Amino acid sequence: MPNVSELLDLAGIFVFALSGALMGVRKRLDVVGMGVLAEITALGGGVVRDLILNVRPIAFQSLGYVLVPVAATVIVFFWHPHVARVMPAILVLDAAGLGLFCAVGTEKAMEYGLSPLHATLLGVTTAVGGGMLRDVLAGEIPTLLYDRQLYAVPALLGSGVMAGLSSYGLHGWPATLAAALLAFGLRIAAMRRKWRAPLAKGIGE
Amino acid sequence: MPNVSELLDLAGIFVFALSGALMGVRKRLDVVGMGVLAEITALGGGVVRDLILNVRPIAFQSLGYVLVPVAATVIVFFWHPHVARVMPAILVLDAAGLGLFCAVGTEKAMEYGLSPLHATLLGVTTAVGGGMLRDVLAGEIPTLLYDRQLYAVPALLGSGVMAGLSSYGLHGWPATLAAALLAFGLRIAAMRRKWRAPLAKGIGE
Amino acid sequence: MPNVSELLDLAGIFVFALSGALMGVRKRLDVVGMGVLAEITALGGGVVRDLILNVRPIAFQSLGYVLVPVAATVIVFFWHPHVARVMPAILVLDAAGLGLFCAVGTEKAMEYGLSPLHATLLGVTTAVGGGMLRDVLAGEIPTLLYDRQLYAVPALLGSGVMAGLSSYGLHGWPATLAAALLAFGLRIAAMRRKWRAPLAKGIGE
Repeated sequence: MPNVSELLDLAGIFVFALSGALMGVRKRLDVVGMGVLAEITALGGGVVRDLILNVRPIAFQSLGYVLVPVAATVIVFFWHPHVARVMPAILVLDAAGLGLFCAVGTEKAMEYGLSPLHATLLGVTTAVGGGMLRDVLAGEIPTLLYDRQLYAVPALLGSGVMAGLSSYGLHGWPATLAAALLAFGLRIAAMRRKWRAPLAKGIGE
Repeated sequence: MPNVSELLDLAGIFVFALSGALMGVRKRLDVVGMGVLAEITALGGGVVRDLILNVRPIAFQSLGYVLVPVAATVIVFFWHPHVARVMPAILVLDAAGLGLFCAVGTEKAMEYGLSPLHATLLGVTTAVGGGMLRDVLAGEIPTLLYDRQLYAVPALLGSGVMAGLSSYGLHGWPATLAAALLAFGLRIAAMRRKWRAPLAKGIGE
Repeated sequence: MPNVSELLDLAGIFVFALSGALMGVRKRLDVVGMGVLAEITALGGGVVRDLILNVRPIAFQSLGYVLVPVAATVIVFFWHPHVARVMPAILVLDAAGLGLFCAVGTEKAMEYGLSPLHATLLGVTTAVGGGMLRDVLAGEIPTLLYDRQLYAVPALLGSGVMAGLSSYGLHGWPATLAAALLAFGLRIAAMRRKWRAPLAKGIGE
C-alpha cells in the first residue's frame, strides 16, 4: 500500500506547512517569508534525518514535498483568519503529523541499519526538527523546549514502539500506523488533560 | 574557461563575507565573531547545498574559499567606516553574488541529477542560505523573511531559468552567466523601483 | 589505547551536556528542553563534522554518546544548585572538552583526506559547533561571537598543531593529547589572564 503511506506523508507535510505559514502571519512576514517558513517547517525534519542517514533527502526528489507547502502558503495567505479560526482542528492535525513523522522516521532509520535506540532518536528528530527550525527562524526559542506541554515525549514513545516492533521484524504500514496512532493519542491526551513536563527543582511554578 | 568561473565564485564569496563581517561590526562582536560570521555567511549556502547533494562540501576542499573570508574580515576590521560608506556599491556586489550563487548552485544540482524543480529550490538555497545563517547567528530574524524587498524571488527566477536552460542541454558558462545576469538585474530593479512582496490580507501596511 | 580515547571523548560529551542542561535551567526550560539542549550541545559539533566529512555521524552509532547527555540532564535536574556552585570546575572541564574535541575532530578530518587547513577549520567547528547551537536554540547570540574571551582561538591553535603533527605522520593518542593539552592550556591561560579579542576600530571599549 504505497499510496496510503504517501498520502499520509503528504498530509503531515501539509499540516506542518500550515503551521509554518501561520507563524509567518503572526510575525508579520511577507509572502516570501511565509513560503520559506512553510517549506522549512514541513521539510526540515526529514531533511535532517536523511542527512544523518547519509542519503539524498527525499524532499529533493519528490514533487509533492515541494509543492504541498506552496499550496499551504497560498491558503494561509488568502484565508488566514479562517485558518486561525480552525486552529483547534490544526492542533489535532499537527498531532497526527507528529505521530506519522516519528513513526516513518524511525522506520527509515531502522531500514538503514541504525540501532533501535538511535532510530528512536532520529525518529524524534524527524518529527520535531522542522518545528524547531521554524521557531528559530522566527526569532523565538523553540516551543517544545519550554512550554511544558508534552510534544517531544509522545514522539519519543511512538518512535520507541516503532523501533521495538521493527527490531522484532514487524515492518510495514500496520506497524507504522500503530506507532503513529500511539504518539497521536498521547499527544491529544497530553493536550486535553494538560499533562506537563516538570521544571528543575527551585525554578518551578 | 574554469578561471573565469572560479574568479566569479570567489568574488561572490568575498562580497558575502564582507556582509557577514559588517554585521559583526553592527552587533559589536569581537574580531573572532566577525571572522566566524564572515566564513559562515560566505560558505554556508554552498555547504548546505553540497550536504543535500550528498557530496563533500567544496568549501572544505578549496584554499580560496577559506582564505577569502579571512581577507574580508581583515578589511572590515581596519576600514569598516569606509566599507560602510561604500554600502551602495556593496549592495550591487551582493546582488551579483546572489545571481552567481543561484546560477552555479542550480547548475551543480542539475549535474547531480536533481529534477529542474528541485535544482531550482537548491539553487535558491545556495544563494540565500549563508545570509539566513548570518542573521540567525546575529540574533535577528532573517532579513529576507520580512523586509519585503525582493531578494529570494530574483534568485528563484534566475535558478528557474538556469534549470530550464540546463534541461535543454545548455550547460557551461554562457548559460550560467545569462541566468546570473537575470537574477542580478531583477534584484537591482527590485531595489531601484522598490518592488515589494505582499503581506497576507489583514496584516498589511 | 582505544579505551583511554573513548573515555576522554565521553568525558568531553558529559561536560558539554552539563553546560547545555544548565543553560536550560537558566532559561527556565522544562526537563524536555534541558534534555534536548544537553544532547544538541554535546553531539552537535561532532554531527556537523561528520556530515561535512560525508560519513554517518558517530553520535548515531554509539550508545554512550546518546546516554551520557541523559545522565547529565538528570544530574542537573536534581542537583543544579550544586552544579552551578561547581561552575569554576565546570569551566575547567569545558576547556578540557574544547581541547579534546578540536584535536579529535582535526585528526578525523585528516584521516578522511582533508588538507591541514581544512582539517583545522573542521576541528574548530567540532569544538565550538555544539555550544553555538546551544546558544542559538536558547535565543541568544553565540557567546563566542561577542564575549571577547578567547574560546575559538585556543581551539584554532590546537587544531592547527594537530593538523601539523598529523601531516608529518604523527598520529595516535600522544599527538592528540599534545594538541588537546595545548588548546586546554591556552584556554585556561586566556581565562586567568583575561586575554581579550579586539573589537574593530571605533566601536571599542
